[in-house]
Amino acid sequence: MGLLVVGSIALDSVVTPFGETADALGGAAVFFSMAGAVLHPVQVVGVVGNDFPETHLKKLAARGVDLAGVERKQGESFRWKARYSYDLNSRETLETRLGVFAEFQPRIPDKFRDAKFVFLGNIDPELQLNVLDQVKQPKLVACDTMNYWIEKEFKSLLETLKLVDILIINDAETRELAGESNLYRAGRKILSWGPRALVIKRGEYGVVMMKDRSMFGAPAYPLEDVFDPTGAGDSFAGGFVGYLAGCGELSDAAIRKAIIFGSVMASFNVEKFSLDRLRNLTFPEIQGRFREFKQLTHFEGLE
Amino acid sequence: MGLLVVGSIALDSVVTPFGETADALGGAAVFFSMAGAVLHPVQVVGVVGNDFPETHLKKLAARGVDLAGVERKQGESFRWKARYSYDLNSRETLETRLGVFAEFQPRIPDKFRDAKFVFLGNIDPELQLNVLDQVKQPKLVACDTMNYWIEKEFKSLLETLKLVDILIINDAETRELAGESNLYRAGRKILSWGPRALVIKRGEYGVVMMKDRSMFGAPAYPLEDVFDPTGAGDSFAGGFVGYLAGCGELSDAAIRKAIIFGSVMASFNVEKFSLDRLRNLTFPEIQGRFREFKQLTHFEGLE
Repeated sequence: MGLLVVGSIALDSVVTPFGETADALGGAAVFFSMAGAVLHPVQVVGVVGNDFPETHLKKLAARGVDLAGVERKQGESFRWKARYSYDLNSRETLETRLGVFAEFQPRIPDKFRDAKFVFLGNIDPELQLNVLDQVKQPKLVACDTMNYWIEKEFKSLLETLKLVDILIINDAETRELAGESNLYRAGRKILSWGPRALVIKRGEYGVVMMKDRSMFGAPAYPLEDVFDPTGAGDSFAGGFVGYLAGCGELSDAAIRKAIIFGSVMASFNVEKFSLDRLRNLTFPEIQGRFREFKQLTHFEGLE
Repeated sequence: MGLLVVGSIALDSVVTPFGETADALGGAAVFFSMAGAVLHPVQVVGVVGNDFPETHLKKLAARGVDLAGVERKQGESFRWKARYSYDLNSRETLETRLGVFAEFQPRIPDKFRDAKFVFLGNIDPELQLNVLDQVKQPKLVACDTMNYWIEKEFKSLLETLKLVDILIINDAETRELAGESNLYRAGRKILSWGPRALVIKRGEYGVVMMKDRSMFGAPAYPLEDVFDPTGAGDSFAGGFVGYLAGCGELSDAAIRKAIIFGSVMASFNVEKFSLDRLRNLTFPEIQGRFREFKQLTHFEGLE
């Protein structure tokens, strides 16, 4: 069952207390693909400029990611520069140059149109709707968004949400989207707009999942060394949707397990710069960390 | 097995977006006792002024709390006034009048000295050491502290920590105490100073427990209505130590379960003002919410 992701492909330059990168491989669709591909083959739709290093794309291809939907356009690639605070808890965006991404019009190649699992990365909700027009009959549509779209494109975002099964966003976005300070009330409100489930990412605090009659909470993996938080959310999404695509199920139990796989992928991703950790990650390593999550969260029930 | 708590008994006046209280029953030892007493009989040592309403103390007595260690002194009771922000995530202390609590010298009644479980509330670490001199041979000593003592009494605090089995503090205090921004590194450092376990409270994000070879993470209970966060940390501690005293065990499994009982008590506590929810809480209600925690955190393992 095909797993399609549509989103940004970027050149990231980040400074953390532990070092820096320049024009490193980045972007939501990239982190998603690299994490998801360990669990299920991924198809990417995105755009790069003619300055985008072929070696970067080869790293994705080496993981079996299908790049047939990556357009190469005349112009500059999307570039993002940021600096993280000493404790990595906040970051300042130093520069955003959209380049060819500014005019991105997702074109889904014919062979991707019957994808059964679709992840709409953080792009204009109008474009997200446009992607959904091009795919045939997905079994699951998951999507991300951000404060910018909540503020500028609220109406189209609501249209997108009607067609989305699972919305994956962070807690501040959840509150802003619903206009409600209590996270769980905010979540209930958003669920009433369409999505069957809401997966709320809380960074170092873990994840909360809300559905009609089920709620799930998982801590983040306790890391003593975080090198670069960039892409944690998208690698979470890659692990999450990748697991669901792999098992082909959408039960409550599968969604809970998928959240742990997502958390596992996010935890590996931040251990090194850019995609350096995910690129070489093996399935046994993922299983090992999944089991650690089981230990981490286990407690005995009442008799 | 006796369960002794030493700490503040106060008159709290708080303003939240949902209402306010004036001179309501409060203080660390009070929240601890009221939560702990549902699980195990509690003995309190503390001080009140001659203005402290007898009716307030009767609420504790009605729960079976032994007040033989509560001294009534000439002077004003400890009073604390605070206002919470609209989303309850921050609060401003408007007034702190220590009154008779300023000269508090814990005197443990003879009949409390063989307590097997001791909780040292957030008081001067010198006084915490003094309490430990007065008790015979406790099986478990747990303690709390705060930024004030970390900054003013670091040396005595380190002395106390050498004698403490479990330190229960919040995440900002953990980082400040260790002088380390990564929570888990900070935790490791503190463990090397004496405590066998560290229970880190993260408010709405839940709890992390660190021990030598075990780590546990639990989310907070997802509350759609929080009325008054005052005393959440102390009612957590009451449920935590109360459960351990009740089962008489200190195994890893017992500590994990105790954290859930603590989280249950904290979640009930914030549903109403002051002690209003804990006062009437029944054991079946506690069991019910414990089971909800089990549901909330459950996911299937790998084959």
